[in-house]
Amino acid sequence: YVWFAEVGAEVTTIWANFQGADPNAELVEINVRPAVFYPEKNHLDYITVRGFELTQAATPWTPPTADQPGLIGPNWAKGWIIEDNDISHAKCSGISLGKEAATGDNFAIIRGDKPGYQYQLESVFTARVYGWDKDHIGSHIIRRNVIHDCGQNGIVGHLGCVFSRIEDNHIYEIAQKHEFYGYEIGGIKLHGAIDVQIIHNRIHDTTLGIWLDWQNQGVRVARNLFYKNIRDIFLEVSHGPITVDHNIFTSPQSIDLWSQGNAFVNNLVTGAVRSAQVLDRATPYHLAHSTEVAGYAFHYAGDDRFIGNLFLGEERGDDYAMGNAKFVDMYGAIKYGTAGYEGYPGTWDEYKSLVGGYSGVGDHKRYHFQKQAVYIDNNAYAGIAAPFEKENGAVVSSAAASAVLVEDGDAVYLETSLPAEVVDGIHAVVTGADLGRVRIVDAAYENPDGSPVVADTDLLGAAKTAGTTYPAGPLAALPAGESRIRVW
Amino acid sequence: YVWFAEVGAEVTTIWANFQGADPNAELVEINVRPAVFYPEKNHLDYITVRGFELTQAATPWTPPTADQPGLIGPNWAKGWIIEDNDISHAKCSGISLGKEAATGDNFAIIRGDKPGYQYQLESVFTARVYGWDKDHIGSHIIRRNVIHDCGQNGIVGHLGCVFSRIEDNHIYEIAQKHEFYGYEIGGIKLHGAIDVQIIHNRIHDTTLGIWLDWQNQGVRVARNLFYKNIRDIFLEVSHGPITVDHNIFTSPQSIDLWSQGNAFVNNLVTGAVRSAQVLDRATPYHLAHSTEVAGYAFHYAGDDRFIGNLFLGEERGDDYAMGNAKFVDMYGAIKYGTAGYEGYPGTWDEYKSLVGGYSGVGDHKRYHFQKQAVYIDNNAYAGIAAPFEKENGAVVSSAAASAVLVEDGDAVYLETSLPAEVVDGIHAVVTGADLGRVRIVDAAYENPDGSPVVADTDLLGAAKTAGTTYPAGPLAALPAGESRIRVW
Amino acid sequence: YVWFAEVGAEVTTIWANFQGADPNAELVEINVRPAVFYPEKNHLDYITVRGFELTQAATPWTPPTADQPGLIGPNWAKGWIIEDNDISHAKCSGISLGKEAATGDNFAIIRGDKPGYQYQLESVFTARVYGWDKDHIGSHIIRRNVIHDCGQNGIVGHLGCVFSRIEDNHIYEIAQKHEFYGYEIGGIKLHGAIDVQIIHNRIHDTTLGIWLDWQNQGVRVARNLFYKNIRDIFLEVSHGPITVDHNIFTSPQSIDLWSQGNAFVNNLVTGAVRSAQVLDRATPYHLAHSTEVAGYAFHYAGDDRFIGNLFLGEERGDDYAMGNAKFVDMYGAIKYGTAGYEGYPGTWDEYKSLVGGYSGVGDHKRYHFQKQAVYIDNNAYAGIAAPFEKENGAVVSSAAASAVLVEDGDAVYLETSLPAEVVDGIHAVVTGADLGRVRIVDAAYENPDGSPVVADTDLLGAAKTAGTTYPAGPLAALPAGESRIRVW
Amino acid sequence: YVWFAEVGAEVTTIWANFQGADPNAELVEINVRPAVFYPEKNHLDYITVRGFELTQAATPWTPPTADQPGLIGPNWAKGWIIEDNDISHAKCSGISLGKEAATGDNFAIIRGDKPGYQYQLESVFTARVYGWDKDHIGSHIIRRNVIHDCGQNGIVGHLGCVFSRIEDNHIYEIAQKHEFYGYEIGGIKLHGAIDVQIIHNRIHDTTLGIWLDWQNQGVRVARNLFYKNIRDIFLEVSHGPITVDHNIFTSPQSIDLWSQGNAFVNNLVTGAVRSAQVLDRATPYHLAHSTEVAGYAFHYAGDDRFIGNLFLGEERGDDYAMGNAKFVDMYGAIKYGTAGYEGYPGTWDEYKSLVGGYSGVGDHKRYHFQKQAVYIDNNAYAGIAAPFEKENGAVVSSAAASAVLVEDGDAVYLETSLPAEVVDGIHAVVTGADLGRVRIVDAAYENPDGSPVVADTDLLGAAKTAGTTYPAGPLAALPAGESRIRVW
Repeated sequence: YVWFAEVGAEVTTIWANFQGADPNAELVEINVRPAVFYPEKNHLDYITVRGFELTQAATPWTPPTADQPGLIGPNWAKGWIIEDNDISHAKCSGISLGKEAATGDNFAIIRGDKPGYQYQLESVFTARVYGWDKDHIGSHIIRRNVIHDCGQNGIVGHLGCVFSRIEDNHIYEIAQKHEFYGYEIGGIKLHGAIDVQIIHNRIHDTTLGIWLDWQNQGVRVARNLFYKNIRDIFLEVSHGPITVDHNIFTSPQSIDLWSQGNAFVNNLVTGAVRSAQVLDRATPYHLAHSTEVAGYAFHYAGDDRFIGNLFLGEERGDDYAMGNAKFVDMYGAIKYGTAGYEGYPGTWDEYKSLVGGYSGVGDHKRYHFQKQAVYIDNNAYAGIAAPFEKENGAVVSSAAASAVLVEDGDAVYLETSLPAEVVDGIHAVVTGADLGRVRIVDAAYENPDGSPVVADTDLLGAAKTAGTTYPAGPLAALPAGESRIRVW
Repeated sequence: YVWFAEVGAEVTTIWANFQGADPNAELVEINVRPAVFYPEKNHLDYITVRGFELTQAATPWTPPTADQPGLIGPNWAKGWIIEDNDISHAKCSGISLGKEAATGDNFAIIRGDKPGYQYQLESVFTARVYGWDKDHIGSHIIRRNVIHDCGQNGIVGHLGCVFSRIEDNHIYEIAQKHEFYGYEIGGIKLHGAIDVQIIHNRIHDTTLGIWLDWQNQGVRVARNLFYKNIRDIFLEVSHGPITVDHNIFTSPQSIDLWSQGNAFVNNLVTGAVRSAQVLDRATPYHLAHSTEVAGYAFHYAGDDRFIGNLFLGEERGDDYAMGNAKFVDMYGAIKYGTAGYEGYPGTWDEYKSLVGGYSGVGDHKRYHFQKQAVYIDNNAYAGIAAPFEKENGAVVSSAAASAVLVEDGDAVYLETSLPAEVVDGIHAVVTGADLGRVRIVDAAYENPDGSPVVADTDLLGAAKTAGTTYPAGPLAALPAGESRIRVW
Repeated sequence: YVWFAEVGAEVTTIWANFQGADPNAELVEINVRPAVFYPEKNHLDYITVRGFELTQAATPWTPPTADQPGLIGPNWAKGWIIEDNDISHAKCSGISLGKEAATGDNFAIIRGDKPGYQYQLESVFTARVYGWDKDHIGSHIIRRNVIHDCGQNGIVGHLGCVFSRIEDNHIYEIAQKHEFYGYEIGGIKLHGAIDVQIIHNRIHDTTLGIWLDWQNQGVRVARNLFYKNIRDIFLEVSHGPITVDHNIFTSPQSIDLWSQGNAFVNNLVTGAVRSAQVLDRATPYHLAHSTEVAGYAFHYAGDDRFIGNLFLGEERGDDYAMGNAKFVDMYGAIKYGTAGYEGYPGTWDEYKSLVGGYSGVGDHKRYHFQKQAVYIDNNAYAGIAAPFEKENGAVVSSAAASAVLVEDGDAVYLETSLPAEVVDGIHAVVTGADLGRVRIVDAAYENPDGSPVVADTDLLGAAKTAGTTYPAGPLAALPAGESRIRVW
Repeated sequence: YVWFAEVGAEVTTIWANFQGADPNAELVEINVRPAVFYPEKNHLDYITVRGFELTQAATPWTPPTADQPGLIGPNWAKGWIIEDNDISHAKCSGISLGKEAATGDNFAIIRGDKPGYQYQLESVFTARVYGWDKDHIGSHIIRRNVIHDCGQNGIVGHLGCVFSRIEDNHIYEIAQKHEFYGYEIGGIKLHGAIDVQIIHNRIHDTTLGIWLDWQNQGVRVARNLFYKNIRDIFLEVSHGPITVDHNIFTSPQSIDLWSQGNAFVNNLVTGAVRSAQVLDRATPYHLAHSTEVAGYAFHYAGDDRFIGNLFLGEERGDDYAMGNAKFVDMYGAIKYGTAGYEGYPGTWDEYKSLVGGYSGVGDHKRYHFQKQAVYIDNNAYAGIAAPFEKENGAVVSSAAASAVLVEDGDAVYLETSLPAEVVDGIHAVVTGADLGRVRIVDAAYENPDGSPVVADTDLLGAAKTAGTTYPAGPLAALPAGESRIRVW
């Protein structure tokens, strides 16, 4: 079912393989509209789009270094609400919360002088000049939409997504035709997602569920379901704080971290986990709850938190097809549970003594190659998932265990088979006070209004009570043995 | 002549070696004043200090990551004129154009969590919030002062020095007691010297003549004399454009470049030259003629220009004592002339084909380890100084050659012995059009008002004429054979 | 008990009237310290001062056009908490949340070229350059302090007070010695009080209880007690929105409005009320919940809201001593109730038709002299208090009525004698939706986090229920006839 | 020759009066293109348009409160050069250097809640957020164009015109069809013309030659010819400094000043001059050579300078048709010479004593109604032109005198008949030092690079020498008696 086009001065000829169908007899639609609902002008604020079917637009590729038009989106504005829509069949991106052209439009390709990385970081500073702040950009609400069959992204957005809330959406069949290759593909692909809250979405059948790239700061990813993706969540070149809690990750590569300052709390994880250093790119960080740049830094790896997660690793064999050996070597071991953190310091004091121990080496060099401390406590492990060597309070079961997400009509069920020891109470409700401050940004785990994060709502919406000890994983109560629980 | 002090609750006891003198009979001065003329408040603008002897202050250490008080200075203000003064005997820094405390005050040491490098880059962003722009900070004039016998710097200044002019000063005996060790020591030590013009100063008997560190952009260093320093000029972790023209560099390590985007035009250089990569620190760059941050980048080395310089290298043996072999290895070969650029691309096209040749390697990685092109044309070399392998128009003499600066009373003479071929006309007046644009910043070689640099004033102040071909080196006319010319 | 001082080159001689006491026998304290706890440097953030007695400082006069040091305060910083202290005997101001010197320090007096008004408005723009934003300044908490016996202000603060919360303080005996004359005197005197919340304070025995001057935007004044002041609340040259609810105002001049965009909800008011135009000063307004300037405007008077207030005016005779007849004429009639709004339009449509009716007069002139609409509904009036001529739902009683605040030890009682008709239910809980948007700023009545104001907590802290009709005044339930209710 | 159109759902019918011509036989062009060369996107910088005929565009009305597209223009960008073009027949504006839509697009009309004045001042602050600074907007060069037959403006531009140079243009037949009525019509109509240089243009046959409205700061208007306009130059609601030198003004209303801080040097003026207060509008002022807002102020009138001008007033009778008596009364007397300043203080000290003399009136009120001092020295007067009552060094001739500009082919001649006493030397070259600082802005008369203005180039381009005394008027040498001098 492939096609191509020959563009002449006057006539464009399209050659297509119709596979036996007669295009003159059948309905043939050739889509050239660049968007369904996307303003030509910037700064048209506070528009609500509710209850439409929005489909079929020939939207262009939306990398973070270009104009990023989607099938629908605010185009660099503030306060849109996009809710209760069915959004589908964008050639590239369905909903765009992205940036506009003046902050960079494929300069790396056009000029060939500097990498896209360089132009992307320049765009952050240019955006500040063109109004990128809480008063003028972002704070959108994207909720209760069904977003599917898009070639690149369900939701995309560099810079323009700040302070937004993405909630109760169902996102699937994203980039599954594999029309495009490379970066910038995912169910939700955001850059510069400052204070973005991604809550209770169902994301499946994508190449990558949620990809948060650059400047994840003040972000919350909570109560989402991930299944049948290649990777579930990829947090890239950021410094945190980001809180990921009460999610279910079941795809082969569940969690991929090329960033620091990440907190995972009360998740269920059945796929692989990786943490990697990125020392050849520095990315910006910001004043808390602000777009104002406070600095930029490398990604030394670590400075992560894991509390109350349930890891049920199982070997996937050829299922895990994302990279060859070299790729894996380059970016760190892929393991199950938190075992991949082997060799990282386990406390702040251990980190400081390691850094201070490079006698005769000055200033930044002492810090440059030293991975940061990780704070990993009170997680439960079964199957081939294994704990971090210095973890306190780990519960490790040798008994068989499994957890899968199964669709049944519109519903989704969590089917588990769990040994009793991993469903015992293991930790109280986790709050900002448990998570401390991330090293580089020197910021605490907070809600957008500056109050401490409190991870007290379970996957199903049940409130957890302060002072009570809860089991590992995303449910306030999790049965031992076999169980089937509706989770959507 | 050392001393130390014991500080008790009520009494401070000072122990000193008076070497036979009787402190009760002689005059003993114990200096505790932190400055001679330095406001307590910021933003006291447009003050002129003219014609004083200003001496003896117990000023503290002034790194770029702390409050930087000097014996005299504006303390974060605009438009001061400090002229015709004799400034001496600052414990640390004589004139300070530096920053104040709110943008960072030894946080790396006090907190021990991040390197000074990280706090220094954060200070750039914080300074922007506290008024660091052309409207409010810098634009000072420092001229016709004699600055001597200071423990750390003759002139120091991070951020506060922007848009300033440093002219006709005589700076000597800086840090020669070696009371302090480490970074931040020099005749002139500036950070963030945007659009600073350092013109016609005489700098000798220092550990380092001029050290411009971080964010040298739009800078001019012209018509200065350097002698009897360990290093003459050190340009560190910057992206240019900086124009260094019509200077005489005669100390063992004449030119040290851990930065990119540097242009050397019509200088006389008798010591060693080095170019080094710095890939473990990224530093900011700015919009042209503005403090506004445009981005930040690594230092890939190269992107330098050399036109019309006269290199007269001579082996110094043990004279060059600054580093051990390891240090040299780490930061690139120290050679004479431009031979140290061996292996760098010689044109923009060569650079682009090298970068493009990393097939299968994405985006920034292709650029990361590739040194940048250098543009080296029409220089003259004698002695052991050798040209860049791809230089066009190099004149290389095998005849004996020498050049030294000799003091005679208040005057300074340049005594040369030069073969005829190196004093022939080699290039016309160099202008911005010859120098192009630096790669990372994408900025041209310009004067502070945005007009192109024109290097048409020789060391002695003689105007060069457009269209005429001049010899290499800092004088419009340079005699072959033996000569003695008064240069101060 | 007066004194004066003769300051010589070496000696200062103080002449004082000791009235029979022997200063050589008694304890005499001469106070020269400028503050008790006030940093010398700006930007020292997040300091908590709890539980001290802080007293006796010779603090200087603190107008909005100067450096504003107080007995205690953050001196241009963020996030201080000052709580549970006893603060007294500041020569001028007790707690200062004010600005520093670089944004203006008595320039009008020193230079004599422009009025203080002009320098004050310039200071707003200069402050923006020096970091006046939510990220860097303000957000202080001042609570549960007793503040008394200060010569100028209990709490003062221009610009530095933004986003602060002033709660549960007891403020009294402020400026009662009448040592100073003129502007800038009050229990709480703030300028630029963006998003400041002044909740549940007890303020008495001052010349002016709360004086909010310039740029009151996003402000809340709720559940405060005012008695034995000359004026209780003065809102000057601001554009709102400001919500004043559930307070008791009992001093002779209860409410003085030289501003627009004010909402009064559920207050008890026994003194006079005035609304005045100010057309010879324009003051800035801001983006909602931000220090960023959005514009500036004159004060046309009106654009005010009054819902559910209980007015019990009584003639005071000579008690009301604040101004002479001329003063009154100049700034509008002082009346009881809302009768002083006579002649103002009563609806938006009426306003628009009046403005549009100036045929042949262009643009701004049509708006310049036209008072704005007022939205006055469902208030109750007794005594000499009378309603606005166009009020809907006014309840007016001819029966005798009174309300006074009476101290009894540490407690305060509200003693009332009220006819039955003014205590009947008159309106449901007032929310932002009832109050609309103010005209000039185009902003809604909101809490600091952007949610709509909901005036559902009564003076005593009782929650009011949505959908229920409540009586006028600050209590959820108010007895008819005689009553005595403890209110502190 | 009028027409109108009926727009239906599918068909637009145009009714036109062809006056005997047959539209089906003749060439009829119906122009619907909104521009000839005007980018759809903002921030496309550094484009040069040279040597074209650019004509016929149906451009819309371009007030300062709307999107301002012209026949050609940069549409909110930096560094364009528009030179050597023939630009004509724009329905409204020929060249636009104006603002874009996001900073306001006819909100006053659409919303009907606030005057255009209010939205215009808001647009200044919004523009700052969207990049309105020297680094990003303006600095255009408009030179050697012929601009004619446009309905509204030859050159228009609010905000986007900053730091631009308008030189050697010939502008005529602007708004002469009188298709539109009201504000915003002129040969050159700029708002916010910070540091704009308008040099050596020939402007005639317009309703208003140059209208600089709001925020004229750092502006220079030099060596221009004005004739056959209704008004030549109108400087409205600005605070200066603006230098107007070596121009010839010959239209009935030569100079109209509803602003302050204006300097007139070496002009020849034959029409009327007026100075008016504007106290019902405040407009912004800026840091020198910056778009950063420093404050805003009323227009008290005065603070003007007149040195070395030659006034040759002659009564025009009915020629001067611009206003009725009421209009004149409202905005001040229209007189010839500088006599209209009657009653203004003549020195700074006189002003200060007047302001200080309002005893008992506080702060701003003392300044509010007091006109400012004017500095009027060494001008020459003939005909009915009369000097300011307190002028020093005025030369007043009772002899007949005249000066007219006469076109002769492409050339323009100045034909004069002058008595000897008005052509004698009267003053040396005027510099910034003669002009002082304007009161409100506290800024000096400077060139865009911050150097003092030196009015040393005469109308014909001849250099004047420091130390020489020159006659009044725009020529370095001016013959007595009859003369005819080519001036274009």
